[in-house]
This record gives sequence, structure tokens and C-alpha cells, in this order.
Amino acid sequence: MTTFAWLKGHGTENDFLILPDPDGTVHGDLDAAFVAALCDRRRGLGADGVLRAVRAAPGEGAEWFMDYRNADGTIAEMCGNGVRVFARYLALEGLVDSSVPVPVATRDGIKVVTYDGIAIAVDMGVPRLLGESKVVAEGTARAARHVDVGNPHAVAFVDDLGEAGTLLEEPQYDPAVYPDGVNIEFVARRGPRHVAMRVHERGAGETRSCGTGAVAVALATAAADGNDPAPDEDVTYRVDVPGGTLHVTWRADGHAVLAGPAVIIARGDLTWLG
Amino acid sequence: MTTFAWLKGHGTENDFLILPDPDGTVHGDLDAAFVAALCDRRRGLGADGVLRAVRAAPGEGAEWFMDYRNADGTIAEMCGNGVRVFARYLALEGLVDSSVPVPVATRDGIKVVTYDGIAIAVDMGVPRLLGESKVVAEGTARAARHVDVGNPHAVAFVDDLGEAGTLLEEPQYDPAVYPDGVNIEFVARRGPRHVAMRVHERGAGETRSCGTGAVAVALATAAADGNDPAPDEDVTYRVDVPGGTLHVTWRADGHAVLAGPAVIIARGDLTWLG
Repeated sequence: MTTFAWLKGHGTENDFLILPDPDGTVHGDLDAAFVAALCDRRRGLGADGVLRAVRAAPGEGAEWFMDYRNADGTIAEMCGNGVRVFARYLALEGLVDSSVPVPVATRDGIKVVTYDGIAIAVDMGVPRLLGESKVVAEGTARAARHVDVGNPHAVAFVDDLGEAGTLLEEPQYDPAVYPDGVNIEFVARRGPRHVAMRVHERGAGETRSCGTGAVAVALATAAADGNDPAPDEDVTYRVDVPGGTLHVTWRADGHAVLAGPAVIIARGDLTWLG
Repeated sequence: MTTFAWLKGHGTENDFLILPDPDGTVHGDLDAAFVAALCDRRRGLGADGVLRAVRAAPGEGAEWFMDYRNADGTIAEMCGNGVRVFARYLALEGLVDSSVPVPVATRDGIKVVTYDGIAIAVDMGVPRLLGESKVVAEGTARAARHVDVGNPHAVAFVDDLGEAGTLLEEPQYDPAVYPDGVNIEFVARRGPRHVAMRVHERGAGETRSCGTGAVAVALATAAADGNDPAPDEDVTYRVDVPGGTLHVTWRADGHAVLAGPAVIIARGDLTWLG
């Protein structure tokens, strides 16, 4: 039986448990089985992942380190919506000055977040537009653009998002192109620089939102719109995901910036009895 | 912004938020929109329902009243797994003497629970076996037994639970038999007095467990086994649900008793910011 502080938050319904652990003395190395138990939506508290908040070591270039874990307890380098929710937590608790850009340490290096009302934006670095292969959903093969956002994506255009089917099963893809699996996005145009997407995340199935997926979709769309290999000036795409609305800016310097709402819904102490 | 005590628990993965409110002064009438916000699995804490724990009025025949709400905020009379989790909460907090049967007040009257280690049993009253109609899933029509457990059920036997399909859509049923909708169970035999089931709950879709559904399935199976309209002596059926294992005893006096694990996984105070 153990008692600890926690918060819950979400960004476009990608939801996280936040575990404050400034000195690393509360949760130690954070056992994978414990993370999985916490994230179980029926037998635990339920979330897409855990964000342990630890003070960064001197010289890391940030005050806070986001120790991100997937719902199954495995370690992940980065999570675009996760770092935005983490940033909201830091501001809510007064741990950072949110009037200026804030660097956050992650396993994928420093990520800089900026605050703008209910929206928080994060610089996702420089994604890479690669070649095309095929994905198959509901028996139909479609061309899919390969985009590397630190993790691999395959982006397929459809006329209607219903064409992706139930997504209860993983669409087929070319394992020679994606030896470690792939996140697969289906995207439909909604207007100028405005698209809607659904995503099947590797290992997780269809989700309500995926930050890197939104970046991949925006870049694949921008490329189809003639901005390939990179835009002459900043271009911003609105990307509707099932859980809300994100905006992705592809900057002329090649960086992609992911922006959208990030909220904390509850805060407290709890005693874990599970 | 409001701060209150809460617990989370589940019975065979039918999960609930418990809101202690002994004097009815903490949550007042418990706003439906607030319940729905709490129960949202991404934007809230997440649960199948809320159990507000209020001290019963003198003369009600129980010390505690279970104010049960569905995840959408609507009021429900009773919930078989809910009252078992509620009973676990009462014992955990030392609010009742769990060495003897404990009466719990619900909108459906007094329910008596008994404790046996990790299992808690609840007397579900006297269900009624009614006639047959048809349900259609995946294009196949099947005979379904009508069982009234306070709420309506249609129980269809299958050789394999996969025959029910994805259950993303509600199976078709006869609206003349079920004018207010129906909970539909598919049941497969696993051995003597041992079955497995899947359930599509009206208004909720497929769920991990359904207490009244397990009772309906046990009675329909017992009836098919020759115990119709009632058994000569107590008969107990094991009912495997996706979230675990329940046992239903159909007593010679006509009462059905639902038994299975009920656990509290977390307890604390929280400040709601949603």
C-alpha cells in the first residue's frame, strides 16, 4: 500500500497520469508492472500512458525531465501530446514561467514548448518525408506516404474516413519498408490546409489522437500540395483527430510544430490498493 | 473547483467511482453532467458508473443507500456488480460488519450481500423466465430466451462466442417483445454447469461484464438443462464473462444469487479541475 500525488490530463483525448517525483524518491525506477496496472482502464485508473515528472540534472538544458511510459509499462522516447500535457502540469503548478518558451528534457532530447491560452505548442524537430508503399485496409490497397517523425508513419489518402473500416485489425503494410512496425494514418481533405484523420498506432490499435501522426499527416498533405521537400515559408495545417483539433506548422527551416489544447482535469493524493 | 473523497473499484472489470457522501452534504443531488464528466474515460476519470454512498434514512432497513448512476449521468435502479463493489467499500472502510449478511438500500429495494474472502454475493431477487423470440447478429437469426432480472434480457446460445461478431452494432431484436430495448447475451457451453458469455448492453454496447446478464444466462442455461420453471434444489452455474468469472446460484426458492470478486483499487481525495 503506497500513497502518492497524481494528476490526470489529456490533449485531444490522448490521456495521461502525471506522477510528480521531483527528486526521484517517490517512485524510484517506476516498475513496468505498476505502470501497466495504473493504466488499465478497468482494473486501474486508466490512461494512455504515465508522465513521471522529475527534476532534470544540472547541464541537461531544462529544469524538468518527462519520464514517459506507455500504458503497457514500456519506455518510450517521446510523445507529442504527452509533452504538451506535461507542460500544462508544469505551468499549473507554477514550476515554470509559461510567459516564455520552456525547454523540457525527454529521452529524445530537449523539446521546447510555448503557451498560448488553452493551446500548447511543441517543436517536434525535423521530420523526414520518404517514399511511398502500400497499405491494405478492408481489402483495398492504397498508396501511403512514408514519414519519419522519430517514429515511422504510413499516410494514406481516402475520400471518406469510413473507408478505413473498423480498424479493429491492423492494416497490412510492407514489412520491408517498416521492419519495426508502423503507425498508419488515413486522411481525408476537409478544405484548404484542413484535413481529418484516423490512426492505427502500432501496439495500441485505433486511438483518439496521435501527435506524431498529426505531424505525419500534415507533412504528407503539404507535400501533396506542392511543398516537397520543404515549404518556402511556414505553412499551417488544421488536423481533426477523433478526440479534437490539432494544428501543425511546417516551418521553412524544416521543423514541425504541433499545437493544440492540453488540460489537467484532476489533482490529488491517492492510496494505491490494486 | 471542488475537492472530495473518492475511491475506484471493479467487479469482473465492471468499474465504478465511489463518492462517499454520508450526510448528503458533499455532492447534493449529484448533477448528471458532472457524473458524465467524471465517467468519461479520456476527458474524466473513467468508469462504467458512479456509486454515491449516502447514509439511509431511519426505517429503510439498511444503514447505507447506494445512489447508482450510469456513466451517462442517468439514474439506474440497481446494478449487480455495482452493489458488490459498493459492499466491498463499506467493509473496507469499516462501515458495516462483514461477518454477517449486510442489507444495502437501493432504488430497487433492499439487497442483501454476503462476504466470503475476495468474493461478495448479492441476492438478486426472483428473476422470471419468459418466452422465446429471435435476435439477429452477423446476419444470422437465433432463438433467444427472454429473462426478466428487473431489466430485460435476450439470451441466445451459440457454439462459439465469435459467432456474435464484433458487437459494434446492436443485434436486431423484436421491439414488440422488448419495447424499451434489451440486453442481449450470447452464451456458449464450456462444461457441466459452466458457460461463457458476451453481452451487448442497451445504451452501452459490448461490456466486460454484466451482473444481471450473468443471472439471465445462468437461468436460461438451467432452464435448457431441465430446471424450468424452477430448480428442485439450489443449482450453481459458473459464468465466464470477458472481465472474469461469476457464479450464479438459482435457489429452490426462486431467488438468484450473484457471486464474484469485488475489489477497491484506489482511494484518496481529489480536486476536480475538469
